[in-house]
Amino acid sequence: MESALINLKLCVFLQATDQSHITFSCKIFQFFLKIMMRRHSLLISTPKQVSLLFVSQFHTTPVTPSTKQVSQTHHRWWGYPKTFKPSFTPSCRHRVNTLHTGSSVEQIEVDEVVEGDVWKKMQDEARLDVTVEPILSSYYNTSILSHKSLETALANHLAVKLSTASLPSSTLSDLFVTVLENDQAIMEAVKSDLRAVKERDPACISHVHCFLNFKGFLACQAHRVAHKLWLQRRKLLAFMIQSRVSEVFAVDVHPGAKIGSGILLDHATGIVVGETAVIGNNVSILHSVTLGGTGKVSGDRHPKIGDGVLIGAGTCILGNIKVGDGAKIGAGSVVIKDVPPRTTVVGNPAKLVGGKNPVKLDKIPSFTMDHTSDISDFYDYCV
Amino acid sequence: MESALINLKLCVFLQATDQSHITFSCKIFQFFLKIMMRRHSLLISTPKQVSLLFVSQFHTTPVTPSTKQVSQTHHRWWGYPKTFKPSFTPSCRHRVNTLHTGSSVEQIEVDEVVEGDVWKKMQDEARLDVTVEPILSSYYNTSILSHKSLETALANHLAVKLSTASLPSSTLSDLFVTVLENDQAIMEAVKSDLRAVKERDPACISHVHCFLNFKGFLACQAHRVAHKLWLQRRKLLAFMIQSRVSEVFAVDVHPGAKIGSGILLDHATGIVVGETAVIGNNVSILHSVTLGGTGKVSGDRHPKIGDGVLIGAGTCILGNIKVGDGAKIGAGSVVIKDVPPRTTVVGNPAKLVGGKNPVKLDKIPSFTMDHTSDISDFYDYCV
Amino acid sequence: MESALINLKLCVFLQATDQSHITFSCKIFQFFLKIMMRRHSLLISTPKQVSLLFVSQFHTTPVTPSTKQVSQTHHRWWGYPKTFKPSFTPSCRHRVNTLHTGSSVEQIEVDEVVEGDVWKKMQDEARLDVTVEPILSSYYNTSILSHKSLETALANHLAVKLSTASLPSSTLSDLFVTVLENDQAIMEAVKSDLRAVKERDPACISHVHCFLNFKGFLACQAHRVAHKLWLQRRKLLAFMIQSRVSEVFAVDVHPGAKIGSGILLDHATGIVVGETAVIGNNVSILHSVTLGGTGKVSGDRHPKIGDGVLIGAGTCILGNIKVGDGAKIGAGSVVIKDVPPRTTVVGNPAKLVGGKNPVKLDKIPSFTMDHTSDISDFYDYCV
Repeated sequence: MESALINLKLCVFLQATDQSHITFSCKIFQFFLKIMMRRHSLLISTPKQVSLLFVSQFHTTPVTPSTKQVSQTHHRWWGYPKTFKPSFTPSCRHRVNTLHTGSSVEQIEVDEVVEGDVWKKMQDEARLDVTVEPILSSYYNTSILSHKSLETALANHLAVKLSTASLPSSTLSDLFVTVLENDQAIMEAVKSDLRAVKERDPACISHVHCFLNFKGFLACQAHRVAHKLWLQRRKLLAFMIQSRVSEVFAVDVHPGAKIGSGILLDHATGIVVGETAVIGNNVSILHSVTLGGTGKVSGDRHPKIGDGVLIGAGTCILGNIKVGDGAKIGAGSVVIKDVPPRTTVVGNPAKLVGGKNPVKLDKIPSFTMDHTSDISDFYDYCV
Repeated sequence: MESALINLKLCVFLQATDQSHITFSCKIFQFFLKIMMRRHSLLISTPKQVSLLFVSQFHTTPVTPSTKQVSQTHHRWWGYPKTFKPSFTPSCRHRVNTLHTGSSVEQIEVDEVVEGDVWKKMQDEARLDVTVEPILSSYYNTSILSHKSLETALANHLAVKLSTASLPSSTLSDLFVTVLENDQAIMEAVKSDLRAVKERDPACISHVHCFLNFKGFLACQAHRVAHKLWLQRRKLLAFMIQSRVSEVFAVDVHPGAKIGSGILLDHATGIVVGETAVIGNNVSILHSVTLGGTGKVSGDRHPKIGDGVLIGAGTCILGNIKVGDGAKIGAGSVVIKDVPPRTTVVGNPAKLVGGKNPVKLDKIPSFTMDHTSDISDFYDYCV
Repeated sequence: MESALINLKLCVFLQATDQSHITFSCKIFQFFLKIMMRRHSLLISTPKQVSLLFVSQFHTTPVTPSTKQVSQTHHRWWGYPKTFKPSFTPSCRHRVNTLHTGSSVEQIEVDEVVEGDVWKKMQDEARLDVTVEPILSSYYNTSILSHKSLETALANHLAVKLSTASLPSSTLSDLFVTVLENDQAIMEAVKSDLRAVKERDPACISHVHCFLNFKGFLACQAHRVAHKLWLQRRKLLAFMIQSRVSEVFAVDVHPGAKIGSGILLDHATGIVVGETAVIGNNVSILHSVTLGGTGKVSGDRHPKIGDGVLIGAGTCILGNIKVGDGAKIGAGSVVIKDVPPRTTVVGNPAKLVGGKNPVKLDKIPSFTMDHTSDISDFYDYCV
């Protein structure tokens, strides 16, 4: 099959006689090359190796990530002095050395496209996937290839999943499209999330893979729409979306919660986020994580999560407490007090790794996704 | 829009000339007033502030809640001496000072209706919601407005959600209606749960909101039907309902489990309750809570939860142990021994807050939903 | 009704005059007897009592279970000296004394059929169930009785559950059938899992009950198909199945994970298993268990679970660590270091019960499903 394709490809190439034909042939050549690279990439799984350091406070690069923050209102929400705020390296994507797909062609493409048109990239991926797996052509067509924009594709994909017999997908699709096409900030966040999942999750092989298959990604985007409706005081619609997302994806995020961009909700089952919770940019949250309240006290009662935070599976963070930028929270922790920036806490109840003089992380944990290295040392008495 | 409504309303009012017209106009006036109050209420989120004290043992009010216990068989199931049993204040609803909706009109209505016809109240809420959000009119019509009773509406709503291609909603709906219309105790418990969610969950804005959107509520009601079928020795149907509820709502309650009334299953994802578990009245259980067994030993092997208990997220309670009335179990705890009444336990393994002389709670934790205040003091070494 | 059946049965029996009629009548008699026993069994719930000892190292019985290991490649994956490897007693099924159904007839049948045709047994169970509960006849017909083999029934049942509006069940069904009918090892594992659930879960009353209702069983079988596709380098299909299983059953198993046979995923909500995880034979895993990675490090980064291991609810096992054969991990544990064979660990972080000289289990914990007995002693300071 591979050789047949190569033969066809060369044949087309050699038959080209004039300039336009050569250009055309080159495109066909590139197309077949892509197919083969993609086939190749689907077989090889070299996880991404990213070394992401905190930039020193004296660094002059912009403090904020390049992707716009969705809710500017919660920027600097807990007033760390600016000099203490860890500066994130928004260009980290360009330092990716070994892409998961292991394909140098794809790597070049990513470097070219990543800041540009993710939707164009997704359509290319989808076309190649259909070539590899024709059984899925109808599914890919309905979900991606028949759509003219990421907005309509996402709206349709969410609507199909969230619809019921009494809540038709057309109603939901119209609702989603209206919101997505009128809020550029949400679409920037959607693209930022797509990139975040592809970069940070070793199990993610393409943007299309994330778009079609990652319920954490889909739940997060549905929440962005619900939050917009919430801000527009359309609570009934916002709650309806929250409810269906909770049933379909087992992710229960109150539409009032503020969530930044570049978010990875990994595996996602059982995530619960309360009404007044705030999640910063470039945060990675594993499954079964709770950002919960502490009762029926009025007003602001849920956690505030800083930028670049990594929260391990099964963790409960309760009350109006602050988790500082770049902090790491180990799996299975119960956190009910503030966590300083760039520190690691773990346990039930959560304790600082390093105690009174906590070790300061030099890498951004939400990017490294390193759940255990320092915790394992801390737990030298374990088992 | 608001002013247009007011104009219309006044116009109608002023055109009234005789007594019947005035009555009619008053009704229209009330209707528009309700719409505006509801719009207003949808924008304002003042959580409920309820101060619910344990009534002293010498108090003469009835010991049991006003709502009937569904399974009388498990009443007094662990034989606390009557004088030590904390008396619940069933009239707590009447002490609610500030309703979530922040509307004094609604507050009056609640006080009038709460013991009466919840179904009437729900239909009013639904009609107002449709006025506010016409896009949902078909959904509300199918789910609530086209039904003649809470029984048929609940049966249909559950059936739509639990049906599959091979298990049509008509089959399920018939089954649910038959059970619900022939067991008044279940319907009392359903209404009691509706009120419990609305009162205790600051995120719940109306009975309709709970009915349509809270999967914990729906899972609990489906269990009530399954439990009835279990008692009627129709195990196959009971298991089928359990299975579909586990798939659709991620709540896995064995149909043999006995559950009281006034139950709040908040967020609900990942709740697991075993066959011989018993849950008292007015209990609040967060998501990812397990009431599990300890092996394949025969007979009674699951926990017994007293009245008014609050169980935090991610908690495992294992074995045939007793959690006393009014106890509070902190998030992420692992409990494998009895918990005395009105105490707080927390941790893995769970320990008594206060140790040998545990602090006795003076408020009913399932009503206050206060997850952390005393635990936070107990954990003064945390982070 | 019972007596009517008996009358009918006797009547038919007495009318028999020649040999063939008697044979025929006997069959009818047996059929009615089965119905009555089944009715009876559905009412009685005596849990299975199984005493399963580890066989000593000097025992001469075969070390491996009788059911074939699905992935021979991961056999002996961490090189315990053979003499230290606990020998499992594959014939444990024959030692079952009291079946859950409490019916001696059924017990005899199980002993006869258990190694034989589970599919035949399931069809008999299904026919009897339909007699008991005619309302389910269409459901049973579509799901079991209309199918010619376990392969097609399983493929159809999974396809119905995993299909969406854009991913029709016919596409999925064809895919599943093709894989299942061409891989005998998978079908052996499916049957082994059916038996494992029925034997170990006191709440399971028949193979049909497991097949129709246990989402952990269904998720596991869908994974077996996805894993086969993964090995065939059809990653797109494998990921699609993983994704739908995660949405429908809330069980997220990466298609690359290797899973043995005789697996019980009890309740199953929230189970997450990473790409390079390996699960041995005859393992029992409760809900909300994570076999997770430790970051984006390349290659082998997930836990390896030995044979006969029991993992309690809500446990996180992180990193490329080894959990020895026959080990028990208590509920709510966080395990980030190796666990020796036949020991018990519990806590956050997990500690060995017995410390430096850990108590060695003499029974296989995945068979006994005993979650707490030794842990309860270890936690004598608890509550």
